[in-house]
Amino acid sequence: MNLAPDSTAMRAEISEQPAALRATLDALLPRSGEIGRLAAGLHQVLLIARGTSDNAAVYGSYLVQAHAGMLATLASPSIATCYRRRLDLSGVLAVALSQSGRTEEIVDTLAWAAECGARTLAITNGAGSPLTAVAELAFVTEAGPERAVPATKTFTTQLAALAVMAIGLGADLDAGELRGVPDEIDRMLAEGIDVEPIVTELAGAAGVVVSGRGLAYSAALELALKLKEACYLHAMGLSYADLLHGPMAVVDAQTPAIIVAADSGPVLAGTVDLARRVRAAGAQAYGIGGGPGLAQVSSRVLAGPRLPEWLAPLGLIVPGQLLTEALARRRGIDPDNPRGLSKVTQTA
Amino acid sequence: MNLAPDSTAMRAEISEQPAALRATLDALLPRSGEIGRLAAGLHQVLLIARGTSDNAAVYGSYLVQAHAGMLATLASPSIATCYRRRLDLSGVLAVALSQSGRTEEIVDTLAWAAECGARTLAITNGAGSPLTAVAELAFVTEAGPERAVPATKTFTTQLAALAVMAIGLGADLDAGELRGVPDEIDRMLAEGIDVEPIVTELAGAAGVVVSGRGLAYSAALELALKLKEACYLHAMGLSYADLLHGPMAVVDAQTPAIIVAADSGPVLAGTVDLARRVRAAGAQAYGIGGGPGLAQVSSRVLAGPRLPEWLAPLGLIVPGQLLTEALARRRGIDPDNPRGLSKVTQTA
Repeated sequence: MNLAPDSTAMRAEISEQPAALRATLDALLPRSGEIGRLAAGLHQVLLIARGTSDNAAVYGSYLVQAHAGMLATLASPSIATCYRRRLDLSGVLAVALSQSGRTEEIVDTLAWAAECGARTLAITNGAGSPLTAVAELAFVTEAGPERAVPATKTFTTQLAALAVMAIGLGADLDAGELRGVPDEIDRMLAEGIDVEPIVTELAGAAGVVVSGRGLAYSAALELALKLKEACYLHAMGLSYADLLHGPMAVVDAQTPAIIVAADSGPVLAGTVDLARRVRAAGAQAYGIGGGPGLAQVSSRVLAGPRLPEWLAPLGLIVPGQLLTEALARRRGIDPDNPRGLSKVTQTA
Repeated sequence: MNLAPDSTAMRAEISEQPAALRATLDALLPRSGEIGRLAAGLHQVLLIARGTSDNAAVYGSYLVQAHAGMLATLASPSIATCYRRRLDLSGVLAVALSQSGRTEEIVDTLAWAAECGARTLAITNGAGSPLTAVAELAFVTEAGPERAVPATKTFTTQLAALAVMAIGLGADLDAGELRGVPDEIDRMLAEGIDVEPIVTELAGAAGVVVSGRGLAYSAALELALKLKEACYLHAMGLSYADLLHGPMAVVDAQTPAIIVAADSGPVLAGTVDLARRVRAAGAQAYGIGGGPGLAQVSSRVLAGPRLPEWLAPLGLIVPGQLLTEALARRRGIDPDNPRGLSKVTQTA
């Protein structure tokens, strides 16, 4: 199959992200106070998600911890749905993320969290979905219908909803900066991101490591998932530190690394050092973002967004989405309909 | 390089596991009451680790939640070491795992947890290491020196220490069953596990998915890490549910799946179903454990341990270790000294 450039629903939906983000922020930013009331007296956040939503949850966990100063970690849904074990979740804000709001495992786990004493928030693109019925409070994203199986605008609008949540939890963050994200993504898309040189080099690759740290780790995981699901590439998403603890051995002349970083922030220096180590191991390092520091040590680089570190993941995933869409077509795959997948995933 | 079978330190250390486990249980089981006293009044566990120790931590999180009924999740060390953000960790038992006890990131994160109000436990093979100095209580495993870079006996003894910890936290578990683990691994090793047919089929593979769910997920993650670090194989460790949310597209005739499961337990049926879906996608599914149900639907199977589900990961990793060691040699790699790695990993 040879699809024309820009002919896919995925490509169209990538471009719809600024509008989807504006609509989502218009709907949710005025409601951040509801989060503050829901979370009054609570001491931590527990995020419940799978797949792309799980990568969004990783962003939420770093954002809440680094900026709202509350412990925020990821739940293991099978404790609820398979082991059926009751835990004491008093003092916990349980936050379930599901694009459709109809994945039973996530709905059931949020219901379990409520029974265990947690307060509950749903973040979903599915207005009126079962997940919204189970949650005390529902933040419905305004991404509109998404036709391509690989999530794009539902992912970035989830990140935006999580940013509003963090503000509602009292984070030291400026809502005005969040309001500026759609314009910045518009600018990135209008100026154009030339993914073709990297597409050409990845076209024959068997595998790739995708790495990032801190807040940007979420964008690295999401890009690794996209490359697996839409390009059938053996993409291994690993944090900076986990990569050094073993999997560093896997990078070589045939296995490049894609390294994702904000242009600033406390994890940038370590991320640049990682790229240097990847090159020293004889592998290509492709940078996404990371400013001049990462560009200098990378084989090739895609410029990231001009956004503060806490918002960078919303823009950092955009070059990755474009890369995925173009690489899928180059590999003869229709990115809108990868094999073996459907839009709503049911796991029990 | 062509290494003779059974000539590596890794192979020797795999065989030393029963003795290492006996010594560790002799040292730690009498001390389970110290955990109960340390954790009195606490409501959750936060695990701090990287690499192989992080895979052990995944076991600990499922074990504590499913059997001791306490929330147990994984920490993000960069919140402490990069973002330097103070959280309220009162009511939390922070458990740091490090084979050497000398990885600064882990030592620093445990010290941070203490400053944030957590009670602290170290699990390490490094007697007198910096990690033991930082922790209120240290569980030192008795694995002895480990020469091969890929951890084997330090991993299984960490699992044993976590099992003792769970018992100390009041889990509904029988210490006598834990005592029986070394004998069962002795039996497995004595009867022999013929990994050669799978080694032959994986010798030319570019990538592999390794999957498991619940308690066995830890063994799947650990096998994926071993295959990356010692065999340079593009091994993607994914939970059952996450695999269905996207990465299922990646399995094909060239990309088999290894599926790890206990012979019993509430996640077994779903795991067998996963193997069936992998086969339906045209890929090979190699089972490790999972009893007759998994064997029936798998292309090939390595028998797992005769252990209850809560202890199965200690035995399930053994066929995976043997597979890794043999596959590395088949691919011309010295498993004791993979490229790019050293025994103590420093990440800042």
